[in-house]
Amino acid sequence: MMIARHIRKLEGYIPGEQPKSARVVKLNTNENPYPPSPNCAKALGDFDAARLRRYPDPDCNALRAVLAKLNGTVPERVFVGNGSDEILSLAARCFVEDDEAIGSLDPSYSLYKTLAVIRNVPWNSGKTTLFLWTNPNAPTGEFAAPATIAKFAAKFKGVVIIDEAYADFARENCMPLATAAKNRNVIVMRTFSKSYSLAGLRVGYCVGPEDLIAALFKAKDSYNIDALAQAVALAAAKDQKWMKANVAKVKKTRKRFTRELEKRGWDVIPSESNFVFAKPPKAFAAKTIFEGLKEKNIFVRYFPGPLTGDRLRITIGTDGEIDTLLAALDDRFSR
Amino acid sequence: MMIARHIRKLEGYIPGEQPKSARVVKLNTNENPYPPSPNCAKALGDFDAARLRRYPDPDCNALRAVLAKLNGTVPERVFVGNGSDEILSLAARCFVEDDEAIGSLDPSYSLYKTLAVIRNVPWNSGKTTLFLWTNPNAPTGEFAAPATIAKFAAKFKGVVIIDEAYADFARENCMPLATAAKNRNVIVMRTFSKSYSLAGLRVGYCVGPEDLIAALFKAKDSYNIDALAQAVALAAAKDQKWMKANVAKVKKTRKRFTRELEKRGWDVIPSESNFVFAKPPKAFAAKTIFEGLKEKNIFVRYFPGPLTGDRLRITIGTDGEIDTLLAALDDRFSR
Repeated sequence: MMIARHIRKLEGYIPGEQPKSARVVKLNTNENPYPPSPNCAKALGDFDAARLRRYPDPDCNALRAVLAKLNGTVPERVFVGNGSDEILSLAARCFVEDDEAIGSLDPSYSLYKTLAVIRNVPWNSGKTTLFLWTNPNAPTGEFAAPATIAKFAAKFKGVVIIDEAYADFARENCMPLATAAKNRNVIVMRTFSKSYSLAGLRVGYCVGPEDLIAALFKAKDSYNIDALAQAVALAAAKDQKWMKANVAKVKKTRKRFTRELEKRGWDVIPSESNFVFAKPPKAFAAKTIFEGLKEKNIFVRYFPGPLTGDRLRITIGTDGEIDTLLAALDDRFSR
Repeated sequence: MMIARHIRKLEGYIPGEQPKSARVVKLNTNENPYPPSPNCAKALGDFDAARLRRYPDPDCNALRAVLAKLNGTVPERVFVGNGSDEILSLAARCFVEDDEAIGSLDPSYSLYKTLAVIRNVPWNSGKTTLFLWTNPNAPTGEFAAPATIAKFAAKFKGVVIIDEAYADFARENCMPLATAAKNRNVIVMRTFSKSYSLAGLRVGYCVGPEDLIAALFKAKDSYNIDALAQAVALAAAKDQKWMKANVAKVKKTRKRFTRELEKRGWDVIPSESNFVFAKPPKAFAAKTIFEGLKEKNIFVRYFPGPLTGDRLRITIGTDGEIDTLLAALDDRFSR
C-alpha cells in the first residue's frame, strides 16, 4: 500500500532502445547524426572542474538571456528545463488541478499519456486545462500551420504547450504566438536534443506569458540544470550557423530518403522533422521489417497499436546510414 | 485561473544566495570548500563532446553499479536523481495519494514544506504516508542515532526517507537500514553535492527496497541524468580516498571553529555535518551579524522564524575562510 495507486497502475514510458555497441545504425530515437558545435567541446575543455563544488546558477541567467535574444523576447518569458520532459512534468503540476485533465493529439508523443497517469488525472477526457500539441507531430512528422494552432489556442480555456522539438526542421514555427505581447495561454517548447545535437545533455526550454513562466519557476527544483549543461547549451546556442548547417544536411537527406522509399512502394507522410513515418508496401508488415532490420543491427522505431502499427518511424541519419538501411531493405524486403 | 490554486499560493523555495563575485567568503549553502577529485577533471577532459548527440543511459547503469557496490547492495535497489531534490519530488508523487500528507522534523530542510504545497497535500498534519528525516539534520546539524530512526520506521505505516546529505561528515549512518533484506519502507538518500564537492553537478541517489525503487523509476523522466553528470559522478564515486580526505579536513576545521565560537560566547549545537548552527552571545542578534558579515562580503545563512531566528548556519569553509570570518566577528561583534 506504500506505493500510490496511480503509480502502481502505471506502466511507465519506455524510451527507444539505446544499444551499447557503437557499430549499430541507430535510427530509432531521432538523434542528430552530426556532432554538436565545436564550441561545445571547447566549453567542456575550458570548464574548470573545481567550479563544480559550487551550486549552479539556479535561474540559468546567462543561457536564458541568449535564448531570449534568439527568440526576440525577454528572459522573464523563458524557462529552462532538465530536458523538455521536466518542463512537461512541471506544467502538469502548475496548470492542472487534481480534478482536471491533460489533452494531446492522438497519435502523438506517447509520454503524454504517462504524464497524465503520474499526475493522476485523465488524458483526452474530462475538463482539459493543459493541451500538449506537438508540432511537427511525432511519430507522424506532420506539420500544422501556426494559424490553425493559434485559432485553437484562442478558444481554449487552459494552457496550450506547443512542443516544437522538431521545429528547426520545419518550414515555419509558432514562436511568434508565444512571444506576442497579447499572448495569455500559449507556451512554445524547444529542445537542444534534436537540431543542436545535444540529446545527452538534457536541456529544453520554453517561452510563454510571464505569469505562466513564473509559475514554472516556483514549482521547479532549486537547481534544476547543472553547471556543465548550462555551459555547453550556452556554447551551442551561440553557434546558430553550425546548427543550421546540420539541419540543412538532415533536410536534404530526408528529401532523398523519402524519394527512395517511395520508389520502393512505401507510403511516406510528408515530414517536417528529422524522421519519417512510413508504411511499407503491402507484402511486408512494419513489425516484420522492424525485427529484420534489428537482426542486421539497424535500429528503427515501431509503435504497436491501431493508429501506428502499420508504419515505422525512421530517424534521418547520415547519407551513409540511410544507404545502409536502403540496402538492407533491398536485400530482404523488396518486391 | 490557468495556474493551479496550490501553485498560486506557493511562495517558492528560495535557495541560498549565489553571489557572482569570486572574492566573497561563501559560507551560506554548505558547499565543500575543496575541489572534487582530480578524476572528475580527467573525466571531463576525456569526454568526447560528440557523444552528446546521443541520449544518455536512461538508467545510469554504470553509476548505479558502483554505488551499489560502495553501499553493499545491488543496483536494483539504487536510484539516481537530478540532485536529491528530484528524488524528493518523485517520492512525493510515488508514495503519497492526493488525500494523504508529507511529514518531516521541524525545523528541518525548508524545501520539505514547499514540496508538500507543490504536491498539494498537507505538511505535518493529516494522514502522513511519507516522512522525510534529515540526518544529520539541517539547519541544526544534530545527529539522531540510527536505532532511534529504525524504531520510528518500524512503527510508521508509510515510507521513511532518511535524507543523509551530510552523512559522510557524521560518526555513523543509516545505510544498513536501507540495504537490510527485511527492509520494507526505509529509503536512504545521499548526494554528490556535499562530501564529493559536486553541488554544481546535480546528482543524488537513494537506496531502498526494490519495489519502492522501481516505483521511482516508473515515475521519473525518461532521461533524467545527463551523460556528463553520469561520467563525472562515476569518476568521483571511484575516488573514495579523495572524498574522505576532504571530509577529514572539514571535520578538523569544524572542531576548531566550534571551539573558537564557544570561546567568544556562542552556543554551538554539536554538529555532525559540514556546517554549524550557532547562537551569538546575547549582546548581538543573529540577523544583525548576518547583515554585518554580508557587508564585508562574508555570506552565512540566516533563517528567520521562532525556531531558527536566533542562530546562524555557517558552512565549514577552509581554515583561511574561517579565520576571515572570526576576524570579522572580533572586529564588529565582540564583547
